[in-house]
Amino acid sequence: MRSYLLTIAYDGGPYSGWQRQDGFDTVQQRLENAFAELTGAPVQVHGAGRTDTGVHALRQTAHVRLERAWVPDTLRRALNASLPQSIAVRGVREVPPTFHARFSAIGKRYLYRFVVSEVRPVFAGGRAHWIRKPLAVDAMRAAARCLVGEHDLAAFATNPGYPRRRGTVRRVDHLHLARRPHGLDLVIQGNGFLYNMVRTIAGTLRDVGTRRIQPEAVAGILAAKDRRLAGMNCEAAGLYLVRVLYPREAFA
Amino acid sequence: MRSYLLTIAYDGGPYSGWQRQDGFDTVQQRLENAFAELTGAPVQVHGAGRTDTGVHALRQTAHVRLERAWVPDTLRRALNASLPQSIAVRGVREVPPTFHARFSAIGKRYLYRFVVSEVRPVFAGGRAHWIRKPLAVDAMRAAARCLVGEHDLAAFATNPGYPRRRGTVRRVDHLHLARRPHGLDLVIQGNGFLYNMVRTIAGTLRDVGTRRIQPEAVAGILAAKDRRLAGMNCEAAGLYLVRVLYPREAFA
Repeated sequence: MRSYLLTIAYDGGPYSGWQRQDGFDTVQQRLENAFAELTGAPVQVHGAGRTDTGVHALRQTAHVRLERAWVPDTLRRALNASLPQSIAVRGVREVPPTFHARFSAIGKRYLYRFVVSEVRPVFAGGRAHWIRKPLAVDAMRAAARCLVGEHDLAAFATNPGYPRRRGTVRRVDHLHLARRPHGLDLVIQGNGFLYNMVRTIAGTLRDVGTRRIQPEAVAGILAAKDRRLAGMNCEAAGLYLVRVLYPREAFA
Repeated sequence: MRSYLLTIAYDGGPYSGWQRQDGFDTVQQRLENAFAELTGAPVQVHGAGRTDTGVHALRQTAHVRLERAWVPDTLRRALNASLPQSIAVRGVREVPPTFHARFSAIGKRYLYRFVVSEVRPVFAGGRAHWIRKPLAVDAMRAAARCLVGEHDLAAFATNPGYPRRRGTVRRVDHLHLARRPHGLDLVIQGNGFLYNMVRTIAGTLRDVGTRRIQPEAVAGILAAKDRRLAGMNCEAAGLYLVRVLYPREAFA
């Protein structure tokens, strides 16, 4: 058996998220179908994480174990030939048998994209969250600062039926806001993300940007660990999984 | 009666082009439906020009004549409230009764967008023309130079059943190629465009960029006035009507 790591981009718009589910069109299922077509046998595609319905990926990762050895670029081309337009395998590399797309990962980076425009942005439908009025970006940046570092992020997670394996403490390594010609990108990297955490942080910072929440209030929301105090989640359409981080040793 | 000029953006993907046609979903029809809903009477929307199936617009223009006076911004919002996500009225202004979106225009600007990427670009589907290998942009620029100015452009028009009103002579005011992070934009402005002219020019310059046509050959193709010598048309998906130009006097 050989193990391969796939790096995958997808437009999440047409799919019911990453994870295979009977009766739904999902990205994992489409990849597994492409492998079945290629190898004539069922192949399980193990993703680094699930993305929800409508969430996009620039570089999602997944591993597979295959019976025979493949030239990585041949495998990539063959998969792309049978995948739909909205899913593409960007890269394939062979990895050690110990590699696991999910358990070897040490972090992830997400992007949340806002489009700021008085008029409905006809090309951003399903690809960004539309805001009509200019955002107070400096206030958003001031508010974001308190989130960087290791914190209990229960205030920014849906369904904190947590204290599962890992509780609700996570480390946010970077959180920055980059102005774009007609909008704003929120980029966040951390060692792990609670369910809906990026969308809740994006919604809270959006509320700071629209002056519904004072920037100073965000530290209090974090400390209170109460989801009801944070802003409404931003919609899935603006969210992109940018990349999954692995330590060098994972490939050795 | 009052006359209003509308500036309209649309994603052409879902539509069978601009022009109203029985049994087809078109942008003009959607706008006329929105007016009918608003005014309770049929309103004819006169576009500056037709765009083909799948062609986009950043600032298409059209005029309407309405029975009653409207505050332009109120009209804009009311139309947007009943238009689909993929069509937006960006602006409305009152114009003199002599104004005609098509006959008052003195020029147009188009954009043709190439995405250059070895891997299928999952977010550019329907929005750009995908090229797998790097384009020789300097050769394309050299080739483009001979097209600027007033020329008989019959070599770059489909169906030269022309010598209609105006023959096939048009003036190209600008033609430039701007590199983008993952692609190339061709921007062309002129006093008028023959049918498929931008897509044929884009296809010919693409063939120069991929070394199928020598840059020096393009002047000969132009001079020969023979459509068969130029490159294959580029697909509609990469084409955007950027703006329609009017002389100041048209608004006076």
